[in-house]
Amino acid sequence: MSEPTAGPTPEPPAEQKGDLRVEPSRVRYELLHVDAQTGARRGRLHTPHGTIETPVFMPVGTVGSVKAVGPDDLVAMNAQIILGNTYHLMLRPGEALVHAMGGLHRFVSWDRPMLTDSGGFQVFSLSGKRKIREEGAEFQSHLDGSRHLLTPERSIQIQESLGADIIMAFDECPPALSDRPYFEASLARTTRWLSRCVKAWGRQRSSLFGIVQGGLHPDLRQRHAEEICAFDLPGFALGGYSVGEEPLAMHEGVAQAAPLLPKDKPRYLMGVGTPLDLLTCVGSGIDMFDCVLPTRCARNGLLFTWNGKLPIKNARFARDETPLDPGCGCYTCRTFSRAYLRHLFMAKEILAMRLNTIHNLSFFLELMTRAREAIEQDRYGDFTRETLARLQA
Amino acid sequence: MSEPTAGPTPEPPAEQKGDLRVEPSRVRYELLHVDAQTGARRGRLHTPHGTIETPVFMPVGTVGSVKAVGPDDLVAMNAQIILGNTYHLMLRPGEALVHAMGGLHRFVSWDRPMLTDSGGFQVFSLSGKRKIREEGAEFQSHLDGSRHLLTPERSIQIQESLGADIIMAFDECPPALSDRPYFEASLARTTRWLSRCVKAWGRQRSSLFGIVQGGLHPDLRQRHAEEICAFDLPGFALGGYSVGEEPLAMHEGVAQAAPLLPKDKPRYLMGVGTPLDLLTCVGSGIDMFDCVLPTRCARNGLLFTWNGKLPIKNARFARDETPLDPGCGCYTCRTFSRAYLRHLFMAKEILAMRLNTIHNLSFFLELMTRAREAIEQDRYGDFTRETLARLQA
Repeated sequence: MSEPTAGPTPEPPAEQKGDLRVEPSRVRYELLHVDAQTGARRGRLHTPHGTIETPVFMPVGTVGSVKAVGPDDLVAMNAQIILGNTYHLMLRPGEALVHAMGGLHRFVSWDRPMLTDSGGFQVFSLSGKRKIREEGAEFQSHLDGSRHLLTPERSIQIQESLGADIIMAFDECPPALSDRPYFEASLARTTRWLSRCVKAWGRQRSSLFGIVQGGLHPDLRQRHAEEICAFDLPGFALGGYSVGEEPLAMHEGVAQAAPLLPKDKPRYLMGVGTPLDLLTCVGSGIDMFDCVLPTRCARNGLLFTWNGKLPIKNARFARDETPLDPGCGCYTCRTFSRAYLRHLFMAKEILAMRLNTIHNLSFFLELMTRAREAIEQDRYGDFTRETLARLQA
Repeated sequence: MSEPTAGPTPEPPAEQKGDLRVEPSRVRYELLHVDAQTGARRGRLHTPHGTIETPVFMPVGTVGSVKAVGPDDLVAMNAQIILGNTYHLMLRPGEALVHAMGGLHRFVSWDRPMLTDSGGFQVFSLSGKRKIREEGAEFQSHLDGSRHLLTPERSIQIQESLGADIIMAFDECPPALSDRPYFEASLARTTRWLSRCVKAWGRQRSSLFGIVQGGLHPDLRQRHAEEICAFDLPGFALGGYSVGEEPLAMHEGVAQAAPLLPKDKPRYLMGVGTPLDLLTCVGSGIDMFDCVLPTRCARNGLLFTWNGKLPIKNARFARDETPLDPGCGCYTCRTFSRAYLRHLFMAKEILAMRLNTIHNLSFFLELMTRAREAIEQDRYGDFTRETLARLQA
């Protein structure tokens, strides 16, 4: 696109100098600013499907659909990136089918960035129905009881077939109450598995992120972070949080672990969390989050607002003409009253699921938008305190 | 819009001469053209919430929501008018609540025309749980077993509280297999009930339509049509069809009954029907239809296309990259493949309900759009034959 010039070839634009030119498949993180009050980072993650402003919350699209909403709704609420779950998609409809249909982006009609998990977390949650060994994890499908073997190689192959922009390493998330010897053995195995993931990774379209485990053991986290971050990967994640521990313990753990990850790479805290969790962990330097909380709560009628959580089935909303959240600009709040939303929920109308989900996701996305603005203005600490007070979180 | 002229006061524009000026609450039908090949009528129904191009199909919004879609979806598919069900709304959330929230239009955020039924049809469907007497019908709620009395006066009062543009008379739809003496007694009572409805009707915002019953008895239909159409009402409906009889018998009955209704008023065939029913009965001079068929079939995965019905769960669509209906311009067909729609349906994703409903309703609405064009061009008979051959209906 550059104009032809006489004389020496001009410097290529900055955009072309980064990883994107050398390895067009790799996502690239650009750190824009660190908040003066906290460790919160304002950044950009460049991907083959566009640039993500961070910190970012990623809605979860388990089985190829963010439950109850369409891509039109997600675009309207300005979701920047959505997740897909490898475990669910490998079983139904199967990654070969998705690949034959042109990949996950095309299959679900989403042309913005996507991320898939490795399938490990779901498999290890099937306690009693799975068996871990060095090769990988054997498990039985929750759908039909059929037996499957998920290995680091197979997980990468599935994820590359799906074709997300970001794919995750196959790791074990050790049960929180495991003893120390189990933790040590598990972490060492996860490191060996990452080595196999990296070998299997084709680097063609999808960028592989490594995952640091270690539960709430600071020394194990540190050692594992060193092992995992020794791999030259485009991004790193913290796994094994929000698995039953107290929120304060989790916040402390993340505050210690986040700085162990490279400054020039995106930092992703997996499966987290509440608005309190998000704001706190952004302050510790986390860039990416995903959680089913807003979508699941929406389907159960628990709605997040700028004045706290609101159980829509409560009788006090029966004749409440006001919008769900007067401070929210989403389709649901622009269009309907609390009275109508309560009626739809009580009558079990399918539309209730969509409208509630649009609102809850919009709230989480707006929370991150405001966080980004606060970081840019070096007032992220104040913003967090004020917001948490409002949310009574 | 007319230019100012000197001399005598000019004739007011046609728009101001009709019922709309004398009684601004009344809907007014304008017959534009009768097809040269059939009895199909191209018309316009002017209502307080806008003008409806007829013939028209009206999506059914039972409990204050057209199941699985939002008003945004209905506007996008260009639905002109939707229905609400008095029986469902009187029980939940109750017409007093809807009235207090500004009426049904505002409650459900729909600013185009609406129609409510009288509640009679649903009450009389509760066999065993209802008792008919001269005063009205006693019934038990399907929700909590509570006892209610629905009378002509109460039905009109509820419907006026809801505030739809068009409200329906409280009638009995006699069971199709009733004997002749039962039919005769029922029709006479329905006529007496209409007289009470008319007395109760405030004529303020809602226009009352009368309903002609008589099953498949031509002489009873004729006599009842004479009784009902003796009332000076803004529109008339045929009830008691599509209640289990053979389609051909229904088509014959409608062909005989439709011409018994006034030419200068809209003719509404209640609860009908399939694409074959719609096209056939438009040819007999029907202007308005409603049916849960497209929405209910959508939720069960049966999709209407210009090449016939398509059961989306069929395995042959598992890897079908084509749109559901290449001849359809709806959001679903513009955006997704059959493979994805099948996947969503098999995985029981909520999004499947919305996407399928958007398509089926779009199909029914487009069928009526094409019917209107064919009438305007005096080729409605040819259009019906060609379309039915394509639909294999």
